[in-house]
Amino acid sequence: MIAAPRLGVEERFAIEDLYAAYVDVLDGGRYDEWPHLFFEDCVYRILPRENWERRLPLATLSFESRGMLVDRVYAVRETLFHEPYTMRHTVSNYKIALDGDAYRVEANYVVLRTKRGISELYSVGRYYDVLAIDGDELRFREKVAVFDNELIPNSLIYPL
Amino acid sequence: MIAAPRLGVEERFAIEDLYAAYVDVLDGGRYDEWPHLFFEDCVYRILPRENWERRLPLATLSFESRGMLVDRVYAVRETLFHEPYTMRHTVSNYKIALDGDAYRVEANYVVLRTKRGISELYSVGRYYDVLAIDGDELRFREKVAVFDNELIPNSLIYPL
Amino acid sequence: MIAAPRLGVEERFAIEDLYAAYVDVLDGGRYDEWPHLFFEDCVYRILPRENWERRLPLATLSFESRGMLVDRVYAVRETLFHEPYTMRHTVSNYKIALDGDAYRVEANYVVLRTKRGISELYSVGRYYDVLAIDGDELRFREKVAVFDNELIPNSLIYPL
Repeated sequence: MIAAPRLGVEERFAIEDLYAAYVDVLDGGRYDEWPHLFFEDCVYRILPRENWERRLPLATLSFESRGMLVDRVYAVRETLFHEPYTMRHTVSNYKIALDGDAYRVEANYVVLRTKRGISELYSVGRYYDVLAIDGDELRFREKVAVFDNELIPNSLIYPL
Repeated sequence: MIAAPRLGVEERFAIEDLYAAYVDVLDGGRYDEWPHLFFEDCVYRILPRENWERRLPLATLSFESRGMLVDRVYAVRETLFHEPYTMRHTVSNYKIALDGDAYRVEANYVVLRTKRGISELYSVGRYYDVLAIDGDELRFREKVAVFDNELIPNSLIYPL
Repeated sequence: MIAAPRLGVEERFAIEDLYAAYVDVLDGGRYDEWPHLFFEDCVYRILPRENWERRLPLATLSFESRGMLVDRVYAVRETLFHEPYTMRHTVSNYKIALDGDAYRVEANYVVLRTKRGISELYSVGRYYDVLAIDGDELRFREKVAVFDNELIPNSLIYPL
């Protein structure tokens, strides 16, 4: 009745599983595992919607290798002093396109932050990602989190 | 181990893809594309949960053709003056049933609205939709958004 | 391109469908149907994240059979006096593992509560569940809701 999409079932599930793992690692506070969800040679950026739409390069955070992600985790763990909080992600409504040997994936995200027992809308936006196979694992080659609401830069401790 | 559901895999993915496109069009502000996700002969309604449960006909918005959706987009664009805002949808937990050549789909939605940099819970509810193949595209034949929380009618500019 | 996961397509969809049914029953206020989504011999617990992470046994609610769930529904319906509210769940980002003849499923949840027309973040957390086939239905053998934010115990009327 409906023509089969060109994206295979296993590919879809592997993509959804990578996002589930991403969410699980961050929300579970297992930050050491986070860089391993990316290629060695990767891009990770967080930027406001306004800059994204106007193609302005300025990002709130911008990393360009897995090593920089590892450094970030170290900084968060050892050098940034902040009141503890936990996150809870909802990633939904995946838009997936094949692009050569990679997948362009967009998805809406909502990150709720809980601090002193109170949950609040922390960051709301959309991921614009590129995923590909690295060895025998699917990983992020690019991950760009574009946020709708104001993010006070100093308040951004953990990755989105 | 688990008996195969009667709904095919490709059908499920096509349904999820239509919702992903719907969300992408609205959250991305590409309102001109929105009417094309519907049949020419369609129903689009927004109504409060109380009216839905009591089968009261009164709707906050009610359109009965693609042409009316096009008119709405024009009105929103050209005649309604309002403070700009953006939306971010989360549509989740699809309940899908075959109904002849159509699909009855229910799903929870949450729409977050961001205005002057602040995100808030804007509308929370459930879609009660009918989807079917129109030519070679899956489209909405009916879309009913039933909201739990109070919606100040004048504040409803863009479709949910 | 991507190796097929060992979890079958039909199994995945049956799991997602059980969550969709769970959400539909609770958000639709059809509490009588809720116990039937569980095994006769089941575990249902709600506990704070802190207790879960420290393996502390104290739970906010703890039931150990379908009969206790039925009792809870009766209590909620007949003996607890409270201001009416409705719930709206978002369950997302499933992490699924086969465990013998059962499925270990984790997923993030957000429950929005609407009371007097106002929606608010009511409970935010993660489900740690065990699902299995019971007769010819997939049901919850264990369901543990671990919440991030403070839940005022008396405010917890309906199941999460």
